[in-house]
Amino acid sequence: MSDDCDEPQSDVQAEACPIVQIIDRVAGKWAVSILVAATRGPVRYTELERSIPGVSRRMLTLTLRNLERDGLLDRTVYATVPPKVEYSATESARELYGHLTGLLDWAERHRPDIIEARRAYDEALAA
Amino acid sequence: MSDDCDEPQSDVQAEACPIVQIIDRVAGKWAVSILVAATRGPVRYTELERSIPGVSRRMLTLTLRNLERDGLLDRTVYATVPPKVEYSATESARELYGHLTGLLDWAERHRPDIIEARRAYDEALAA
Repeated sequence: MSDDCDEPQSDVQAEACPIVQIIDRVAGKWAVSILVAATRGPVRYTELERSIPGVSRRMLTLTLRNLERDGLLDRTVYATVPPKVEYSATESARELYGHLTGLLDWAERHRPDIIEARRAYDEALAA
Repeated sequence: MSDDCDEPQSDVQAEACPIVQIIDRVAGKWAVSILVAATRGPVRYTELERSIPGVSRRMLTLTLRNLERDGLLDRTVYATVPPKVEYSATESARELYGHLTGLLDWAERHRPDIIEARRAYDEALAA
């Protein structure tokens, strides 16, 4: 699929492409982790580093910058020595977070169905 | 971040990890495209191939199998010659689809804010 949603080659692509784009932008591993942390309250860079195991400084900085640029994080610099920087979730991010947890609720509600579906599928394959 | 959500190393990871797992499983490029197509009505393999530009047979087959195994697609084999196979979205998939389009609605509602936030961010950087 082309990454450009402006010239879809089918109806299905026209509908799927923007959904995939959004998911890529705001629902990647690091973005979700940062959104989860910042929705709980303002967080500092070092707190994020600690609470997101495995993230590199490069990816943390880049993801913070993108989220700030998209208006999902407010960045506040306090004039202390050394300056203190805090990130907090914007209203827009809180709404997005609601959709992400909606997805999680869906998965949790359907977990038994999914487990049963997999069992049945694997059993049918083995038969 | 470890792919295993069972041993989170922080509160944030404990909350973010299952969200990321679900997104990886059901919200990838091909899965979203197949869900969009199958939610419109039963579709055949060749129709999917046509309506999802760029998908390889290997990825289409694999993604269909995973979605079927997770109980998101029903697969019906008609006893024609040659046999006709159709995929349709299950109730569970329709609910998931609602969450995915919720995400899209969010993005569409916030598109002006995002554009403005980016403009302001880039302007502040240039100042």
